[in-house]
Amino acid sequence: MGMTLGLLAVRYGCELRGDPDSVVDRVATLTSAGPGAIGFLANPVYRSQLADTQATAVILGTADADNCPVAVLIAQEPYAVYARVAADLHPSPPLRPGIHASAVLGNVACVPASCQIGPGAVLGDGVSLGERVSIGASTVVGEGVEIGADTRISAGVVIYVGVRLGSRCLIHSGAVIGADGFGFARERDGSQIKVPQIGGVVIGDDVEIGACTTIDRGALGDTFIADGVKLDNQIQVGHNVRIGAHTVIAGQAGVSGSTTIGARCTIGGRVAIAGHLVIADDVVIGGGTGVPGSILTAGVYAGGGTPADTLQRWRKNMVRFGQLDEIARRLRAVEKRINRDS
Amino acid sequence: MGMTLGLLAVRYGCELRGDPDSVVDRVATLTSAGPGAIGFLANPVYRSQLADTQATAVILGTADADNCPVAVLIAQEPYAVYARVAADLHPSPPLRPGIHASAVLGNVACVPASCQIGPGAVLGDGVSLGERVSIGASTVVGEGVEIGADTRISAGVVIYVGVRLGSRCLIHSGAVIGADGFGFARERDGSQIKVPQIGGVVIGDDVEIGACTTIDRGALGDTFIADGVKLDNQIQVGHNVRIGAHTVIAGQAGVSGSTTIGARCTIGGRVAIAGHLVIADDVVIGGGTGVPGSILTAGVYAGGGTPADTLQRWRKNMVRFGQLDEIARRLRAVEKRINRDS
Amino acid sequence: MGMTLGLLAVRYGCELRGDPDSVVDRVATLTSAGPGAIGFLANPVYRSQLADTQATAVILGTADADNCPVAVLIAQEPYAVYARVAADLHPSPPLRPGIHASAVLGNVACVPASCQIGPGAVLGDGVSLGERVSIGASTVVGEGVEIGADTRISAGVVIYVGVRLGSRCLIHSGAVIGADGFGFARERDGSQIKVPQIGGVVIGDDVEIGACTTIDRGALGDTFIADGVKLDNQIQVGHNVRIGAHTVIAGQAGVSGSTTIGARCTIGGRVAIAGHLVIADDVVIGGGTGVPGSILTAGVYAGGGTPADTLQRWRKNMVRFGQLDEIARRLRAVEKRINRDS
Repeated sequence: MGMTLGLLAVRYGCELRGDPDSVVDRVATLTSAGPGAIGFLANPVYRSQLADTQATAVILGTADADNCPVAVLIAQEPYAVYARVAADLHPSPPLRPGIHASAVLGNVACVPASCQIGPGAVLGDGVSLGERVSIGASTVVGEGVEIGADTRISAGVVIYVGVRLGSRCLIHSGAVIGADGFGFARERDGSQIKVPQIGGVVIGDDVEIGACTTIDRGALGDTFIADGVKLDNQIQVGHNVRIGAHTVIAGQAGVSGSTTIGARCTIGGRVAIAGHLVIADDVVIGGGTGVPGSILTAGVYAGGGTPADTLQRWRKNMVRFGQLDEIARRLRAVEKRINRDS
Repeated sequence: MGMTLGLLAVRYGCELRGDPDSVVDRVATLTSAGPGAIGFLANPVYRSQLADTQATAVILGTADADNCPVAVLIAQEPYAVYARVAADLHPSPPLRPGIHASAVLGNVACVPASCQIGPGAVLGDGVSLGERVSIGASTVVGEGVEIGADTRISAGVVIYVGVRLGSRCLIHSGAVIGADGFGFARERDGSQIKVPQIGGVVIGDDVEIGACTTIDRGALGDTFIADGVKLDNQIQVGHNVRIGAHTVIAGQAGVSGSTTIGARCTIGGRVAIAGHLVIADDVVIGGGTGVPGSILTAGVYAGGGTPADTLQRWRKNMVRFGQLDEIARRLRAVEKRINRDS
Repeated sequence: MGMTLGLLAVRYGCELRGDPDSVVDRVATLTSAGPGAIGFLANPVYRSQLADTQATAVILGTADADNCPVAVLIAQEPYAVYARVAADLHPSPPLRPGIHASAVLGNVACVPASCQIGPGAVLGDGVSLGERVSIGASTVVGEGVEIGADTRISAGVVIYVGVRLGSRCLIHSGAVIGADGFGFARERDGSQIKVPQIGGVVIGDDVEIGACTTIDRGALGDTFIADGVKLDNQIQVGHNVRIGAHTVIAGQAGVSGSTTIGARCTIGGRVAIAGHLVIADDVVIGGGTGVPGSILTAGVYAGGGTPADTLQRWRKNMVRFGQLDEIARRLRAVEKRINRDS
């Protein structure tokens, strides 16, 4: 089921150079594309692949249009247009509504007939699902959980009691939402008393949560993930964290308890953010950075294993780190020379 | 079901300033508390919230008692008392004893009638549970596993064959206990031979294990987690690690194989401890620290992405790291000046 | 069911000093071994334990043979021989072929009678298993997945649609294979469009994957794990990563999208490798290293929280890092002295 280039050009406001009646039926990389495939060029690293592409058409920016041997769709944001075209040509498989015979439903509040409940899934008492929610095999949804329409939850997910999830979310396997936050008070004898974690987790619309990512419930009050947040795999979100709208966090990052992250942030893989901090809107943090203090101004920060600094300063200091032994030797030479001269 | 301030004062040895017959029925933060709620002040950061609190009472230390506009319970350890009061007012939901029809039990050794076995749970041959053990939905308990009384295991946990768990433990979803340790011998052709992992895992009483935390079985002999240890989410514990009593480890930390950690340690998030080390009792390690060698003396260590050092030395060196480019430029200036002068 | 030392010597080409008819029936550490146990000495750290061992025999290298009070099997690669002997004496438990009554099979393509399908396991339409495949309890195998002969998948694993796994693999609990890669295009309003992840995951023969390790499906084209790769627990492998044959990666490492890692590499725990890089064959990377750029030459690299450098340079610079405050003070002293003298 292909689409014509003319249709795609109109739908996404692109300039088309080529035959509007050409049909594409799949996306592919520039090097692997053959007839019927549409490719894209968004990263200049791959510019050299343009000349030999066998794609039927390529989505790209104005600067590259003249160098493309095949039809082009010229877009201001080629990667965003590619994403939409890919979704058109490769839609998610349709739901198969129904409750599998092996699923176990408690005294649920609402499970519309449009939902798909997989084999071995478990829904606790009071669970309320919107239309067309999909619950994967062996996924466990705790008592009183509310899930908005069109949210898809993969197999092997656990959602604890009382969590609320918005609409059109996508939750990947192994994710755990609503486990207890990590709160203990140490006694004088060194033992620990558990601090009950009685808050919940509230997740907005259009949120994606990666495989084996864990989001703890609040100690008091809720952990909060705003609309449009995208979390990669193996991220840890501590209790009472708040993440602002459309913020993106890459894999293996960690956010300690009670930290608030602003909207539209881009947080790299393996970033570690300490607890009780504030990160402003529109902050970009490079992969591997440790963030020991609040970041109150939008900008690009980095650290690569050291605490966050502005990206520019950090890069300079890291170059110097690689010269550290040499710096120390030069300093010793200067000291010797001064002592000799005096 | 509230409790009077008088009862709480007596139970926890607090001085009460206020009406002993006032009733509280829930805990809350100072800012969100309304009538009937009891708050606490343990972190001086939140001292300014005291003046306007609408709580019925506040648990705090002597120094803050005079500044509180409502009833106070004065405690030497306000956070510990708060933890106990919170547990009184918000008890865990009671067990619902019974074995769900969809659970699959092998030829188990002992499953008392007081246990709660959730939907889709799987218990292998020879499994032995204490009284009032709870096994969550879809959790898999391998052959011969022994679990002590009052231990609660959430949904979606996997416990491999032969693991032993103490009493009153709490295991969160996604945790995997007893998978093979990572042991291979490289052959001359570059391929690997697996070293069979034939030890087990022994976990004491009152241990809490976070979501998606993994504890590997021993290669020879057991991996050992002592009484009262608290592990946060996404922690990796390698084979034959030993963790001493009441040690607390925060999220995403990792302990490599055959390392021994002492009692009452506090290990921050994302700490990485190399293998075959010894960490003494009462060691505190700051978040993100790499620990490449043994720490044989109690104290506070840190590193923030660099190997552990004493906290004081590390802080000074990190300040200097931020000046590294400037230091290198100043050294160059000194060198030029000396060359010019001579 | 023991084995004689004579049999072991012949099977593994070892020189035997001792009674060839002595029987051993288990492996043990030098200190815990008693009669009937066979120990090994591969790490010189444990050499002092040799004198007092109660083992019936010890596998070791030529240099240690004269210092052993009991029978010895002298091997060029003692640890590799130990691994093989341990596997002989402690074989994996035999499969119990059959499909558990609580397993849910779709319209599968091929499930031989020699396979073991555990309680609550779910196999989607079109799944094809080789002979003697084992699928653990509550494991979910997506539509169209192909798995080679003798592969064992533990409980609580999720394998997404279309993944291909080779023969003799071992997949531990909590692993998630084939979840969506992390791909989004940011719109001008700050929101994100999901880039469909339409590639797959192809895994070779003899691959081991640890607990809670996640391997994402490709965005376009496949993520690829070659024969003999061994992945520890909690590793994140991004979309379109390629890992070469017999490469070993330790726990909590992360490999960002589209990076290619060569054959026979040894990558330490918590290593973070950025995206779109190339790592050559036979590269060794120390634990905790951040790898921001390609490594095109075989060798040993390290960083301990800082970007990768050669091991030797990094060690020197880390020593200097610990002197950084002192270096800065000495530089200040030099500056003062020069200013005073001039």
